[in-house]
Amino acid sequence: MTIHDFGRGPYPARVRIALAELNLQDKVRFVEVDLRTGAHKRPEFLEKNYSGTLPVLELADGTYLAECTAITEYLDHLEGRPRLTGVSARERGMVHMTNKRAEIELLDPISVYFHHATPGLGPHVELYQNPEWGERMRDRALRGARYFDDLLSTRPYVAGETFSMADITVVAAFVFADIVKLTIPLRLGHLHAWHDRMLARPSVQGWRDMGRSTGNCPLEA
Amino acid sequence: MTIHDFGRGPYPARVRIALAELNLQDKVRFVEVDLRTGAHKRPEFLEKNYSGTLPVLELADGTYLAECTAITEYLDHLEGRPRLTGVSARERGMVHMTNKRAEIELLDPISVYFHHATPGLGPHVELYQNPEWGERMRDRALRGARYFDDLLSTRPYVAGETFSMADITVVAAFVFADIVKLTIPLRLGHLHAWHDRMLARPSVQGWRDMGRSTGNCPLEA
Ligand SMILES: N[C@@H](CCC(=O)N[C@@H](CS)C(=O)NCC(=O)O)C(=O)O
Ligand SMILES: N[C@@H](CCC(=O)N[C@@H](CS)C(=O)NCC(=O)O)C(=O)O
Repeated sequence: MTIHDFGRGPYPARVRIALAELNLQDKVRFVEVDLRTGAHKRPEFLEKNYSGTLPVLELADGTYLAECTAITEYLDHLEGRPRLTGVSARERGMVHMTNKRAEIELLDPISVYFHHATPGLGPHVELYQNPEWGERMRDRALRGARYFDDLLSTRPYVAGETFSMADITVVAAFVFADIVKLTIPLRLGHLHAWHDRMLARPSVQGWRDMGRSTGNCPLEA
Repeated sequence: MTIHDFGRGPYPARVRIALAELNLQDKVRFVEVDLRTGAHKRPEFLEKNYSGTLPVLELADGTYLAECTAITEYLDHLEGRPRLTGVSARERGMVHMTNKRAEIELLDPISVYFHHATPGLGPHVELYQNPEWGERMRDRALRGARYFDDLLSTRPYVAGETFSMADITVVAAFVFADIVKLTIPLRLGHLHAWHDRMLARPSVQGWRDMGRSTGNCPLEA
């Protein structure tokens, strides 16, 4: 399998962490698509992913799978024993709800803030910006962080008793918050304690070490 | 199980059609939440769904599941033999990718257009509007319709060879387009031919008849 992504990007992190959790790192090779030059908006890339975003997983038969949630579903079912997306109906419902909520109330709003209310990827990539919308989304993300803090006052992982894809999505939100210098308030103690536990997981640790060793932190360039 | 929703709403339609496809209609009762009065933004409802949207599925143990995709995952796994979300890893990846794309490139943009560039649910519910963003989203939805038309020139269903949750999401986009009087251009022949086939499915047919018989089409009120 081939993953088209951008080393330290927050969404790519979701799939890289999932791969490590599933012990599938050795099954993939990576091809870098340079977001800073807008390579992801060119026709060749849009053929792979209509939405023009990373990551994209290319299967051996030439199929392209985009969207982190879909890629994670694929990877998690390769061996027939899901470990990141839940097993029972109730677990699957909880994981998908929490994952989606982590996207729409936290990670995606930070992304919109980045692309619309900061210079984002630069003027040749950000052809349209709506700063007021970007600011609203920053505020939504901060409210979302409070929601997840609340949630984590009663459970060890965001979707319940076990680690899941939804935790990875919230980890990615911390990655993106760091890039855009959005502070997750320290008083959100449950959320930060949870995050410290996440940072100690080998999958997350490995992802951070990868960035450190290559010195490759391109979104901050 | 109890479903909190709003009769003819496009997102509620996703779950009602899924229920019919899975033959689970008799397992649920419905409680109406009146969107027009902003009941979905009041604290009692936000306890059930932080995001303040419908539908929400309430399980017998008191768990609330929000987000159509998550609810569909739950329902589809109740009997252990998924029929709407794929079985193999590849199918699951394709269904989730296409479903997400139907959301972010078609259904959700129509919703944003409705809430931001039209009167939406009225001034007491739409407390903040960003009309420019709403117009952009309408344009995105129209591009998304062209994308799905293209896709359907080579396959019978949006995610491949079989009917899935992703088809239901595109059906919901047609429902919402109708409400906001957004015309899906007739020259998108593959998309319209597919839609005609969808309308002939008992699940979709039943949903439409329900609306007709109750005369309940509240979003147009
Ligand atoms: N919904 C997509 C979002 C992916 C996404 O936004 N990826 C970022 C990389 S961190 C991207 O490609 N951004 C470039 C852009 O939006 O211009 C997913 O879940 O995969
Ligand atoms: N992401 C949600 C979206 C649901 C949604 O937007 N539902 C509409 C009903 S058709 C709603 O509650 N709109 C009210 C509002 O946004 O004020 C899902 O997939 O369930």
